Amino acid sequence: MILLFTDFGLDGPYVGQMQAVLQREAPGVPVFNLFADAPAHEPRLAAYLLAAYAPEFPAGSVFMAVVDPGVGGDRAAAVVEADGRWYVGPENGLFAILARRARVAKWWQIEVGEEAVSASFHGRDVFAPVAARLAKGVPPPGAERAVEALLRPEWPDDLDRVVYIDRFGNAMTGLRAAGLDADATLAVGEQRLPRARTFAEVPPGTAFWYENANGLAEIAVNRGRADWSLGLATGDSIGVLR
Amino acid sequence: MILLFTDFGLDGPYVGQMQAVLQREAPGVPVFNLFADAPAHEPRLAAYLLAAYAPEFPAGSVFMAVVDPGVGGDRAAAVVEADGRWYVGPENGLFAILARRARVAKWWQIEVGEEAVSASFHGRDVFAPVAARLAKGVPPPGAERAVEALLRPEWPDDLDRVVYIDRFGNAMTGLRAAGLDADATLAVGEQRLPRARTFAEVPPGTAFWYENANGLAEIAVNRGRADWSLGLATGDSIGVLR
Amino acid sequence: MILLFTDFGLDGPYVGQMQAVLQREAPGVPVFNLFADAPAHEPRLAAYLLAAYAPEFPAGSVFMAVVDPGVGGDRAAAVVEADGRWYVGPENGLFAILARRARVAKWWQIEVGEEAVSASFHGRDVFAPVAARLAKGVPPPGAERAVEALLRPEWPDDLDRVVYIDRFGNAMTGLRAAGLDADATLAVGEQRLPRARTFAEVPPGTAFWYENANGLAEIAVNRGRADWSLGLATGDSIGVLR
Repeated sequence: MILLFTDFGLDGPYVGQMQAVLQREAPGVPVFNLFADAPAHEPRLAAYLLAAYAPEFPAGSVFMAVVDPGVGGDRAAAVVEADGRWYVGPENGLFAILARRARVAKWWQIEVGEEAVSASFHGRDVFAPVAARLAKGVPPPGAERAVEALLRPEWPDDLDRVVYIDRFGNAMTGLRAAGLDADATLAVGEQRLPRARTFAEVPPGTAFWYENANGLAEIAVNRGRADWSLGLATGDSIGVLR
Repeated sequence: MILLFTDFGLDGPYVGQMQAVLQREAPGVPVFNLFADAPAHEPRLAAYLLAAYAPEFPAGSVFMAVVDPGVGGDRAAAVVEADGRWYVGPENGLFAILARRARVAKWWQIEVGEEAVSASFHGRDVFAPVAARLAKGVPPPGAERAVEALLRPEWPDDLDRVVYIDRFGNAMTGLRAAGLDADATLAVGEQRLPRARTFAEVPPGTAFWYENANGLAEIAVNRGRADWSLGLATGDSIGVLR
Repeated sequence: MILLFTDFGLDGPYVGQMQAVLQREAPGVPVFNLFADAPAHEPRLAAYLLAAYAPEFPAGSVFMAVVDPGVGGDRAAAVVEADGRWYVGPENGLFAILARRARVAKWWQIEVGEEAVSASFHGRDVFAPVAARLAKGVPPPGAERAVEALLRPEWPDDLDRVVYIDRFGNAMTGLRAAGLDADATLAVGEQRLPRARTFAEVPPGTAFWYENANGLAEIAVNRGRADWSLGLATGDSIGVLR
């Protein structure tokens, strides 16, 4: 299957145009949106989100990931194979965290031709055709490179920032809960947030954090909105008190 | 086919994660979103909405329905078969109205294990695998129970409240139009709303109600927004004058 | 494949209900949303948008297009074949521009029966069954008419208005870039917008226009929102200075 991970939004033509290309190039391969609202123009935040959500998908899955402030500039495109899953998208760090956490990772660099493609919609014109071929089992195009150069050593293993806010106002962080103490407290400004196992464990209106269904530390308010209550936005820093 | 009826929203990863599980467990079965924006955390309102929209689908359809303020608490899961269609979701009244209106309805109760699943995403971890098996024709898991205990006798047959507001500001009520007099008037506060057959029958700017394409009494304003004009929100009471 | 082009929004049941009808009537034919947020109630604006986005799809594609302020009124339904692609929807000008630009176009008029269908949801009850049959290769129903009467000669070949604003605040116009001078300047009120090839060519915060990936002149601000910066809304006039 092919999973779309983009900041394009579901509105407008972009997702449908990519789905049509994928259908034409890889008929019958199911295509799903994983995120269409990944952090806009923020590949670093998106890298931690993608790394948390990709591992639940089976080996052979192809992720077409586009969070790309530099479209029209001269950055290259990347294909990554990590623990049996494939990733294609811009070479801007989006795959750094998942590649770093993988047992095995390989990287191919694809030069983006100037002529054959639109200047502004590499999702449809560059990445979708590559994703379709990977889904059909065709080996990656481009030149294989040493994966170390992809890994962004200057980025931390876990990111103490909000990487996504969902429809209910819950704020996912780039911190894996498994790396935090069982009784770790998170801090948003002056406010201290205790850990709970689930919403039902805290009184209505109480802010807390918990391990979400994909292993991230997520900040929530039982029957409320954490984003409004705590003034949180994507990219905000979170404190970790042990 | 499998129909998703949730309050998860289309944004974020939740719908895509469930689709991927359904695809893996029941390859080739089509999956569609019926509502991804059912009344959030309001199973009673959602019960009247689902009961109005499910009957147009063919026998054998499987509805995976999740409107669930109690996730992480200790409520059980339910499978319902009603007039040949299958429903799986939390046991919180969501299926009460459709089961009550069905000629034949059966109910199975599923205990939710503590270990194997995430505490917060029962849609992916509990309901989707069950829905996939039902779609493949596997009999429901769990213990069959007497359906009477599912039917919420304290809830009315029709609900005089707004159960959904759509993109155009039209407000669906929980009232079936067939149960209202041909010249029934609805009331929102002091305002009286006459019945019309369709938008084109009333002057622009006029508020009215009509039988929508699924049989519900729906409040609308021709070339306007009923929600803004009348100050309507999901859950608001509607008066019925005959 | 079947492409949906509507102003229904992705929220609510409408798209899912249409997908289910299409699946039932044409099993296995892929269905994608091209636009679910076409200009609401504005078939003239939508006509220029659809004409720009349809040609990238292969011959045999079926577009089910519904932008229809007159539902419930007495307008007819139309099937158009233009350059090998099929279109079905209301007869209100929505197909005028694409038919006018096609090398070959034919038009069939379908009377909408009063009884068999809902008064308000012709997408599900009228257009989807027709689209499904076209996708299966069944000839169009209805009477073939002389296509000239469909072409709205009073509408211009290119429209100097905003026809769509996307998630990022970019404003698509109804002007094809290929018809503008290489150094044409667009005007929004007093503001002059130069042409650029892509976002990366102008400094952050600068408003410009460029040829988008479907050939339309699109107004944008590098790392900003053109709609907010320039006060643009769908339907607004754009000046063309050569």
